[in-house]
Amino acid sequence: MTEEGNIRIAILGLGTVGYGIFELLKRQREELKAKTGLQAEIGKILVRDASRSREGVPQQLLTDCFDEILLDETIDIIVEVMGGIHPAYEYIAKSLRAGKNVVTANKDLMAVHGGELLDLAHQTKRDLLFEASVAGGIPIIQPMKQCLAGNYISEVVGIVNGTTNYILTKMTQEGMEFSEALAKATELGYAEADPTADIEGYDAGRKLAILASIAFHSRVTFDDVHTEGITKITAADIRYVQEMGCVIKLLAIARETEEGIEASVQPMLVPNRHPLAAVNDVFNAVFVHGDAVDDAMFYGRGAGRYPTASACMGDIIDCMRNIRFGCTGRIGCSCYRQVTVKPMNKTRQRYFLRMQVQDKPGVLAAIASVMGNHGVSIKQMVQKPTDSDHFAELVLITDVVREADFRNALTDFNEMEMIQEISSQIRVYG
Amino acid sequence: MTEEGNIRIAILGLGTVGYGIFELLKRQREELKAKTGLQAEIGKILVRDASRSREGVPQQLLTDCFDEILLDETIDIIVEVMGGIHPAYEYIAKSLRAGKNVVTANKDLMAVHGGELLDLAHQTKRDLLFEASVAGGIPIIQPMKQCLAGNYISEVVGIVNGTTNYILTKMTQEGMEFSEALAKATELGYAEADPTADIEGYDAGRKLAILASIAFHSRVTFDDVHTEGITKITAADIRYVQEMGCVIKLLAIARETEEGIEASVQPMLVPNRHPLAAVNDVFNAVFVHGDAVDDAMFYGRGAGRYPTASACMGDIIDCMRNIRFGCTGRIGCSCYRQVTVKPMNKTRQRYFLRMQVQDKPGVLAAIASVMGNHGVSIKQMVQKPTDSDHFAELVLITDVVREADFRNALTDFNEMEMIQEISSQIRVYG
Repeated sequence: MTEEGNIRIAILGLGTVGYGIFELLKRQREELKAKTGLQAEIGKILVRDASRSREGVPQQLLTDCFDEILLDETIDIIVEVMGGIHPAYEYIAKSLRAGKNVVTANKDLMAVHGGELLDLAHQTKRDLLFEASVAGGIPIIQPMKQCLAGNYISEVVGIVNGTTNYILTKMTQEGMEFSEALAKATELGYAEADPTADIEGYDAGRKLAILASIAFHSRVTFDDVHTEGITKITAADIRYVQEMGCVIKLLAIARETEEGIEASVQPMLVPNRHPLAAVNDVFNAVFVHGDAVDDAMFYGRGAGRYPTASACMGDIIDCMRNIRFGCTGRIGCSCYRQVTVKPMNKTRQRYFLRMQVQDKPGVLAAIASVMGNHGVSIKQMVQKPTDSDHFAELVLITDVVREADFRNALTDFNEMEMIQEISSQIRVYG
Repeated sequence: MTEEGNIRIAILGLGTVGYGIFELLKRQREELKAKTGLQAEIGKILVRDASRSREGVPQQLLTDCFDEILLDETIDIIVEVMGGIHPAYEYIAKSLRAGKNVVTANKDLMAVHGGELLDLAHQTKRDLLFEASVAGGIPIIQPMKQCLAGNYISEVVGIVNGTTNYILTKMTQEGMEFSEALAKATELGYAEADPTADIEGYDAGRKLAILASIAFHSRVTFDDVHTEGITKITAADIRYVQEMGCVIKLLAIARETEEGIEASVQPMLVPNRHPLAAVNDVFNAVFVHGDAVDDAMFYGRGAGRYPTASACMGDIIDCMRNIRFGCTGRIGCSCYRQVTVKPMNKTRQRYFLRMQVQDKPGVLAAIASVMGNHGVSIKQMVQKPTDSDHFAELVLITDVVREADFRNALTDFNEMEMIQEISSQIRVYG
């Protein structure tokens, strides 16, 4: 704080989001006083090269030396928007130890080291707030920790990656194949040069680790999350799925069951009538089921300069209020239980299966018999002719099955000559 | 607080919601300690007749004397779920003056006396929390006051009345007329014996007053809200609207414009592609547009025992945390501006208009000319044949027009012999 009692804020990183926060702090300057009772000013901004000038940013705010921020006792709040695990981890830990409050947008970091950093914040009685780390501008962490705190949450399901949701939307609405839709996403700047983290579900997996930890009050880390991407989804899958009244979405889904927590990211069939089915383009949404609230959903922009900066600003304002009332650390880590995470092969769900089979008598019976042997029953099945006289396409949805049983049936299918190819196997939501 | 430091809670009213809170406090007994660091217990429950026994509720908790609660210094939090303005107003005011914190689900009260009660809470440095007063279990007040606090919110639009949304959903999906759908809603317990407050938009208007006050940081009361109900909507309107790619929803909509705040409740055309169009049955949703977050939407159950109790529990937990950290009153009234509310006739919007006209040359030209004289231009028009040889049906959507200009055109239409009837006039959202 300054001598006049103004809150001083340092921003670590002046990329897309950092610049957004810089802008919003300017826009809201007068309002912040009315909203929190305190004035705020930017003390320092950490950049790689402090000699380079940035449009609209006073040169004297820039520094390339973190210690200059750390040792500045007037700085109350550190806003970390550098991304990556190192040195963000060290900077945040040092800041908390120095008695500073921290706001971060860093999902990679929180999904791996969230537990220990929150413990540290607890010890130092400081805020470590991270609303922006999941689903960009959508308020979800604070609402779960506070507004829904009277619930036992049994499920949290999100469309939390805008890039893949854009790709799947294009494939659905315009019949594009994956590679074409990815190219379009790259062209529009929705996909990065290396899109792996998005299309393989890692980004969504990190966000799910954070969401699940909060929902179930038990620490879930990225390593606990099973991830599958959308690279194998084809336009043909989407067409078949549409005939069955569904769309395909990359869902990050966590459930608490009697045998433990399930946490996975994968493309899934979502019935058209479910609110998540209508979440299109780069929009994100998080759907929560609680024993009291029943179903609730939070929808909005999951990325982008100002939406992400909006979430950071909410945290900054929260922290300013806590500083004013002397109650920093008021809501810290909410993981007070230890629930095991269930291995994927013990989970249970329905499956959509599409395969090319020989078009001759007895094939259906043989397939049904293999599935029956593994306890996999069929809920819905369509046989389609193909261009070839010798092959037919079989599209089916199973009943709820144990993952391990389904895998065993697939292993048997691989040895059956009458099955030419298993084109796709996609889990079904709900 | 008890001598052991347990928080003591009194519930005013043991109806649907009161009983839900009683149940949730039992369910969450162990969890509350982990979530807030404090234990909580129910001290007293105010009922009309304390001699009548209620299943599962210990008789000694019941009292029919409010003063017994007010004078009990161990009671920290009053949860008001009686409904109605009197004596809820007096009870809340007395509770705050006696240094107690208050959680209320009372929209009628907050929409009219919210400002003064929040001022009182500010003076006494106590919490007055009212998440349950708008949209039941959906977290919306806290997210707007906190997570979205870094935004200038320019618009808040809600489907905040489950009864009317159920009726309009039935009319849309099953082609029912209004009276039939209302009867169905009554049968299922979604509509009250006297459904006036729901179907005339008063209930939604009260919620909108609360939402608008928070969104624009300027007090809006129920009297400021223009309300129109859904009783004039017909199955025919809905059919025409569907052909135009829209649905009809009862929208509570508030905007901040340069000339002031607009606040109204009315049935409106909503394009199918808008997320609000997919909010069906008794579900509610609140859509918010902010300068940073862009579009965000909050969806869930807007009424019912446990969803509403969920919102009250969130507030109770919030308040318990504030008590623990000695920061009650941390987020109070957020109305720090005074913006005038614009009269309805100065607002601007598009209109859907359906009318029966004489089927003869010159009619269209005459109608278009009247509209042109009043500055009303036509965006889209369809002429439909009717069963009669002499009449045609005209369905049109105007460009954005000033309400007063549109009204003047309608007045002229009333004097034109070639217009047999104006069947419907419905505003268009967006």
